Amino acid sequence: MRLDLAYDGTEFSGWARQPARRTVCGVLEDTMSTVLREDVNLTVAGRTDAGVHAAGQVAHADLSAAVDVAALPRRLARALPADVRVFSARVVPSAFDARFSALRRHYEYRVSDAAFGAHPLRRWDTLAWPRPLDVDALNAASALLLGERDFCAFCKRREGATTIRELQRLAWERSGDVLTAHVSADAFCHSMVRSLVGALLAVGEGRKPVSWPASLLTSTTRSSAVAVAPAHGLSLVRVDYPDDADLAARALVTRNVRVAPTS
Amino acid sequence: MRLDLAYDGTEFSGWARQPARRTVCGVLEDTMSTVLREDVNLTVAGRTDAGVHAAGQVAHADLSAAVDVAALPRRLARALPADVRVFSARVVPSAFDARFSALRRHYEYRVSDAAFGAHPLRRWDTLAWPRPLDVDALNAASALLLGERDFCAFCKRREGATTIRELQRLAWERSGDVLTAHVSADAFCHSMVRSLVGALLAVGEGRKPVSWPASLLTSTTRSSAVAVAPAHGLSLVRVDYPDDADLAARALVTRNVRVAPTS
Repeated sequence: MRLDLAYDGTEFSGWARQPARRTVCGVLEDTMSTVLREDVNLTVAGRTDAGVHAAGQVAHADLSAAVDVAALPRRLARALPADVRVFSARVVPSAFDARFSALRRHYEYRVSDAAFGAHPLRRWDTLAWPRPLDVDALNAASALLLGERDFCAFCKRREGATTIRELQRLAWERSGDVLTAHVSADAFCHSMVRSLVGALLAVGEGRKPVSWPASLLTSTTRSSAVAVAPAHGLSLVRVDYPDDADLAARALVTRNVRVAPTS
Repeated sequence: MRLDLAYDGTEFSGWARQPARRTVCGVLEDTMSTVLREDVNLTVAGRTDAGVHAAGQVAHADLSAAVDVAALPRRLARALPADVRVFSARVVPSAFDARFSALRRHYEYRVSDAAFGAHPLRRWDTLAWPRPLDVDALNAASALLLGERDFCAFCKRREGATTIRELQRLAWERSGDVLTAHVSADAFCHSMVRSLVGALLAVGEGRKPVSWPASLLTSTTRSSAVAVAPAHGLSLVRVDYPDDADLAARALVTRNVRVAPTS
């Protein structure tokens, strides 16, 4: 079964289960196991960090055929805390793997450069930046990062994980005081979106030249000059999958080509 | 000086000062008095109830000429809690009165009829409605309420306050699972928007006929059949004022024609 999820990451220690921490996976698996009276184990498209939100996270679970899938979102809404919601549940081919079948992930990062900070009702998912940001400089620096590259300088190293990724979109748009970065890739290594945003904000406020973030792509270690932007501005908004007929082939390619893609 | 304000009403006991309660007026006046080192007394356009939000509230205060108005939003952002923000401050003619010069107030009410409830990140300003809503029925019933009417059936009575108001706009639009009611009037009596929304939701879910809310306009007392919709779906989004030259005349008209308009 495929589940489409949204959550407010503020009060979660990220997706992945950790002992004695409130995590999205832990809350969902525990609640679903109670409601459905069977063990539920979720595999997720993007293992978001503590504080990161999701509007379009995807997970899958193998459940007994008896579950009324159409009624599940309403049933779970009664049992789940208000900061996580399953907005869609549906049966998918057995070859569907939320993590390995995914073609690409789409994130958004929201930042306000208003003198007064972030709008109070959006303060949970909007970074308040204290200096004016130049959206043209942000976009010029972003364009230089596109393509298949080794994003080692922007990744927290994890054992055995490749840092070569195809960055397919990185574009900023301004609406009033709020700038939104749209960031899409086949997969992201750990902390990659927040590191890219952190480097770009230094360009946006005029502290670094437009060429600077791309110049770090030659690095073979994580760059200490790159600040990781705060988690709360970041949301996973969508995950793309191939048509049902191509699911198995995609999972095979992903598992072979990418050793342990992590988010 | 005119102040334009936004706040998340969740943790406030409304606008108006009350002993031992956290109120928007109390927090703003206390913080501004500390920052500016002079007594600050605010007059507001709409005295919102506990839990009601604002994206475009307006207040005025008489301050010493020494205040650097342009720098005020940033200065106050450093001192105010994150759930209230002054996003604009400017000098206005002395005839400007945030309450009595106002031509009309605009509110929005957000409600989601998704099976899963409200999106987690918007749960603070969106009512989760458990049954599907018919936007056409909502709009048909709303249209019958427009014009200058006695909204007694939809008002909590306050001593000496008229309940005759000119409802200028009441229109619903759907975007996915979220319906937004746009509600505009010269002024609103106490709990009027939430009572109108409460009555209309009964129509929207098919429990009452389209004609029912308007049929209550003949009442000379508050209707016990009308449920007041929860506060957290409601936001004051804008207040309109006349041009500077007409401010004094407008205040004179408002004070004479409307005895104690309250919100």
